[in-house]
Amino acid sequence: MEDLAVVILAGGSGTRFWPASTASRPKQFLKLLGQRSLFEDCVDRALALAPAERILVLTNEIQKPLVRDQAGALPPENVICEPCRRDTAAAVALGAALCRKLFGDPVTAVFPSDHAISPLDLFRRTVLSAAAAAGGGALYTLGIRPSRPETGYGYLELGEQTLDDGGIRHYRLLRFKEKPDLKAARRYVGSGRFLWNSGMFVWRTSAVLARIESFLPGHLEAVSRAVESFGGRKWRAALRSAFEPLKPVSIDYGVMEKAPDVRTAAAEFSWNDVGGWPALEGILPRDADGNSANCVVHSLDSSGNVVFCEGGGRSVALVGVKDLVVVDAGGRILVVPKARAQDVKKLVEGIGKD
Amino acid sequence: MEDLAVVILAGGSGTRFWPASTASRPKQFLKLLGQRSLFEDCVDRALALAPAERILVLTNEIQKPLVRDQAGALPPENVICEPCRRDTAAAVALGAALCRKLFGDPVTAVFPSDHAISPLDLFRRTVLSAAAAAGGGALYTLGIRPSRPETGYGYLELGEQTLDDGGIRHYRLLRFKEKPDLKAARRYVGSGRFLWNSGMFVWRTSAVLARIESFLPGHLEAVSRAVESFGGRKWRAALRSAFEPLKPVSIDYGVMEKAPDVRTAAAEFSWNDVGGWPALEGILPRDADGNSANCVVHSLDSSGNVVFCEGGGRSVALVGVKDLVVVDAGGRILVVPKARAQDVKKLVEGIGKD
Repeated sequence: MEDLAVVILAGGSGTRFWPASTASRPKQFLKLLGQRSLFEDCVDRALALAPAERILVLTNEIQKPLVRDQAGALPPENVICEPCRRDTAAAVALGAALCRKLFGDPVTAVFPSDHAISPLDLFRRTVLSAAAAAGGGALYTLGIRPSRPETGYGYLELGEQTLDDGGIRHYRLLRFKEKPDLKAARRYVGSGRFLWNSGMFVWRTSAVLARIESFLPGHLEAVSRAVESFGGRKWRAALRSAFEPLKPVSIDYGVMEKAPDVRTAAAEFSWNDVGGWPALEGILPRDADGNSANCVVHSLDSSGNVVFCEGGGRSVALVGVKDLVVVDAGGRILVVPKARAQDVKKLVEGIGKD
Repeated sequence: MEDLAVVILAGGSGTRFWPASTASRPKQFLKLLGQRSLFEDCVDRALALAPAERILVLTNEIQKPLVRDQAGALPPENVICEPCRRDTAAAVALGAALCRKLFGDPVTAVFPSDHAISPLDLFRRTVLSAAAAAGGGALYTLGIRPSRPETGYGYLELGEQTLDDGGIRHYRLLRFKEKPDLKAARRYVGSGRFLWNSGMFVWRTSAVLARIESFLPGHLEAVSRAVESFGGRKWRAALRSAFEPLKPVSIDYGVMEKAPDVRTAAAEFSWNDVGGWPALEGILPRDADGNSANCVVHSLDSSGNVVFCEGGGRSVALVGVKDLVVVDAGGRILVVPKARAQDVKKLVEGIGKD
């Protein structure tokens, strides 16, 4: 098969792992799960699919030093800074326009860089299976078999199966479903006809560009014009003037939901979008009392807690507490019930992110 | 009035402030409340009552360096190491025997070094009032007016008032009451006839020695014999052989409860025995949400928490948590509900104190 290209989206910020994550040190660069960051693992996955020179990273000026530091195997010129945040449609359009300019018309995989995925081999086989099928022009999403009625994700409603590629099943996509309420989520999961929308895509470059042209023509026009200057003195200014006027819209909403011939390859690998401290519960080592931690925890009558110490060197003592998140990072300590972890951002907005 | 002597009891250990306090760094030496330790404040109070050369500190070998470091104003030879822990009767007997040898027959005040007391002037007037009245031979305890039906303290049942010394009232003591259950404690507090037993004493040296002779003659004999060697080459060995056989017994149980003519001066100063993390609630600065802390706390929907950071330099973020103790000290983090703080010692016993 022809060489793939990979576009890694690494521009996200966020405070769902505050105080470990901050605007200048977002979650994908944290070593949440050991010695390596989610971003480093993502680069490794990309390198299992494409040669280094065909892997692009889209990030921003603030995070560029972290990308350079953690993506040492990639050519420096492959790290592209978006001049401002304009959501995923703009990033995907920019990535596709760059792939066309640099690599011709490759099949391209687009990956967020903040997911925990294993094992690598099954992931690789899934992407290659989608890539082979996407060569003809279908836009592929990777779908994740739901393990719970999660209301924080979008869902993919499956149509007919189009292929069973050695256990990797491909489906036509009937429709995208926005984050559902709990009742709908339960129905989706119970039906067996829905997958979680992982935000990972596989498509031929010309195919996605054609769809962007149909549904977001302004996006295509802007990034195509900017990319003419790529590598030259005017590149940064051209990209800024192309990006700034763009309406922030997601690739799902802006293109995928409207496009014909969208398909899904159902992932059988383990996937965790590591959406916040409670999500570490499924990933960090768990002790006999059900406390998940990356450091030494001494506990008495305490269970279901998630404990994270930056660097892992300290120890934490828990007595009589349940279902808390306890974090020591960035010179701060955070204590919050797992069920209220999403409210941390309200606090952070009040005190500044850094 | 003649010069007082002061004996400071600074040998206590304990884990009620773990992980800040450990066997080699007990609570009285911690800077829990700011720039000074409880012990340093105690030395200051002693210096307001007696010249430095008449202030003795009883401690142990492990804590001696801390005493030397924090009691710089006192003569080094006034820091006495008990060879082993034998409870307060042995310590009081040793202190009294040393006072007799070194100072003649002064009126002596005996203070635990782990209480928070203010203001100094009212404390000083109270002790001097008791000292003046104790000159004739009565044994004085200082009693604290109870502010709640505390079950963790002993109580003093008051008899007739013997003196009103400018607002400082003296009473005959009817009897000591051991730590009561909640029902009894409520009755005591409601009656107005009970004070908390503070563990602070004032007496003429010869008077307390006479009572020790009556009720714990072995203690008197042992310490008197040892003290003959004080300052000489055999002192440490003599004290060890005197102390080791002594039965551990408290001065309250061993002497005060049985002695005639025991009196109480009712303290009107503010007193807190700082018995554990929850006790800091009454002492540390409290924010608008009712969180008490020695460091910066950012909180959302969180109240009644007690937060302590060693050195005070870090900050703590609390979201949706109530009535917790959160401590960062000694390279460890502790999270425990205030109501379960006493259970921390069970955990510490399991993991070692240091």
